[in-house]
Amino acid sequence: MARKAAAPDGRGKTADGAGESKSARTRTRILDSAAHVLSIKGYAGMRLSDVADHAELQAPAIYYYFPSREDLIEEVMWAGIADMRDHLVEVLGAASSEATPMDKIMLGVEAHLRHELDISDYTTASIRNAGQLPEKIRKRQVAEEARYGELWRKLFKEASAAGEIRDDLDLYIAQMLVFGALNWTAEWWNPRRGSLGTVVAMAQSFVREGLSPS
Amino acid sequence: MARKAAAPDGRGKTADGAGESKSARTRTRILDSAAHVLSIKGYAGMRLSDVADHAELQAPAIYYYFPSREDLIEEVMWAGIADMRDHLVEVLGAASSEATPMDKIMLGVEAHLRHELDISDYTTASIRNAGQLPEKIRKRQVAEEARYGELWRKLFKEASAAGEIRDDLDLYIAQMLVFGALNWTAEWWNPRRGSLGTVVAMAQSFVREGLSPS
Repeated sequence: MARKAAAPDGRGKTADGAGESKSARTRTRILDSAAHVLSIKGYAGMRLSDVADHAELQAPAIYYYFPSREDLIEEVMWAGIADMRDHLVEVLGAASSEATPMDKIMLGVEAHLRHELDISDYTTASIRNAGQLPEKIRKRQVAEEARYGELWRKLFKEASAAGEIRDDLDLYIAQMLVFGALNWTAEWWNPRRGSLGTVVAMAQSFVREGLSPS
Repeated sequence: MARKAAAPDGRGKTADGAGESKSARTRTRILDSAAHVLSIKGYAGMRLSDVADHAELQAPAIYYYFPSREDLIEEVMWAGIADMRDHLVEVLGAASSEATPMDKIMLGVEAHLRHELDISDYTTASIRNAGQLPEKIRKRQVAEEARYGELWRKLFKEASAAGEIRDDLDLYIAQMLVFGALNWTAEWWNPRRGSLGTVVAMAQSFVREGLSPS
């Protein structure tokens, strides 16, 4: 699945192709293909020849756009979190003015799962491989994860202040347990075994009750 | 952290060294070292030279015990789940006769977290790298995961029959959300930031409330 946003370094203007140069479109196609292959095969298993096949290019052409395999992976991993963060900001911005902090956490659960499992190969790749990469190509991703986590930290703090989270829970640990429940879906969810809507509803129920005062 | 059990192919008699041949001890030391390195560096990052350094051997000596890097990894990944399953069976076997199915799920949460985060590098390695390996070396691990999952499936079914799990929850999805919350701890928990006991208590509270009828 392609990114909606423009390429982060400004070389691609938009990802829908309008006004974009052929070069920028090719670069986007390589990134999209890398995200797809990385989301399935993982960091160790992603071969540039598979990326090239998927992008309908010769493998050496990739080096015209990315100095190395690591640079290509670095950008996918960063974009996967950056795009999910943009998506969450958008979803929260569109929330009803009457939404409580817990309602917003529920919107966040849905936004996270849909971005991870349906909207973006970049996000699937980013989540599935976060623990596999050498630190040197994780810097931008780590910074982006911190920004994304900060949005959630704020929601959890507000929910706690509003009495919507039990007093016995440590907010940091609770947030990480929720992230775990959501992130791990990429390891087991199979669209052939049930709808994404069902997973979203179950996760919302599990998280809401898991956090709320009895 | 070393395995407690004998080597699965019977070549090592016990892991505490008593009655074990030097060869079996060396083999165990290689496996322990591989588990340690794999749990930290991941599948792509695990170099045999690091394993050899940790085991205080020359790298080529590893090939005397394991035909290939893949064979070594295969055994670590399998043992990580097999040992955790043995541990859970033991814990459940020692449970009070008055324990309800939900009480047993709580024991399972603790057993899983302690095995993953403290007792066994094999289990950490197994969980962190499950989604990274080529299918051909995942067969024994996948079979063992199914056996481990079956223990939990039984607990969830009993808890549901006893009215300890909400009717609106799909039991398979709920179990996978719980596994996610537990498995992902390997990605974020840091003993310097808080005790394992606290993580266990929070996870038990989150899972119990997340599943129980309001």
